[in-house]
Amino acid sequence: MSPTPTATELTPALLIDSSPFLQAIVQIIRANDAYGTYRNWADELLLKPYIVTKADKKDISLEDEIDPLTKSRILVFYRAIAYCIEQETGSLAQVVVVLNHEGFGWALVFAGRLILVSKTLRDAQRFGFRSLDKMHAEGTKLVEKGIELAKQYPEVGEL
Amino acid sequence: MSPTPTATELTPALLIDSSPFLQAIVQIIRANDAYGTYRNWADELLLKPYIVTKADKKDISLEDEIDPLTKSRILVFYRAIAYCIEQETGSLAQVVVVLNHEGFGWALVFAGRLILVSKTLRDAQRFGFRSLDKMHAEGTKLVEKGIELAKQYPEVGEL
Repeated sequence: MSPTPTATELTPALLIDSSPFLQAIVQIIRANDAYGTYRNWADELLLKPYIVTKADKKDISLEDEIDPLTKSRILVFYRAIAYCIEQETGSLAQVVVVLNHEGFGWALVFAGRLILVSKTLRDAQRFGFRSLDKMHAEGTKLVEKGIELAKQYPEVGEL
Repeated sequence: MSPTPTATELTPALLIDSSPFLQAIVQIIRANDAYGTYRNWADELLLKPYIVTKADKKDISLEDEIDPLTKSRILVFYRAIAYCIEQETGSLAQVVVVLNHEGFGWALVFAGRLILVSKTLRDAQRFGFRSLDKMHAEGTKLVEKGIELAKQYPEVGEL
């Protein structure tokens, strides 16, 4: 039995428009686009490299160094999370992504002395999501958890 | 007028013996010494690469990539801080050092969601201290501040 596609899977453009998290990613990509390469690209096309199917993942070797473009995508993913948290809490959030040669490492988003997002990364060479839906869900979950922490420990976030 | 040398500057071996922080560094270096290269080296000799004079610094170009040995020394420095904090607080501390090609970056020591040490790094190619005294003082200061934070916000440190 194949799963019924959800409405958003059928209309990615609509999903992007209604997801502040996906919009933040698009905005960061466009802000870094110094030469206007992506000027005429649809948002959906900009987000496409984040969609990595099971079959795609199989084709990406874990023996190789992580592709600089993949690393940059991971960084933008967490910067978008930091941006969305900032929008809600008003406090500046820093992003640190550190990966070793085997694709293991950490992604941290923090404000003051408070870590808003703490993720261990593994097999970072294969970073990606099965669908925009899943990407939206994962990003939004991390944003919400971060906002919750920032509100719970405002003092630590301002140290 | 040349500064009067302090007693500890005259007797580095004594200083190392009486500094839990410097001892932690020595211990980590020896623990990583899988081939026994340093087995017969005095502690003082192991710590020597951490001593970088003003003249030494001038000779280290900031245009070049950071030397992997320097990077590893930075990591060991912060791991020793994490170790000393752990000894006092009992909670496991993680260390993340991230540097870009220009020698700028972050060193973070954290437990749970609490950042115990947060340092921005610059000109990391020239990482080092003028004397063992200064190194002991800097490390010990960061350890004490970290312990203070861990005691002040135990809940965040255990998230």
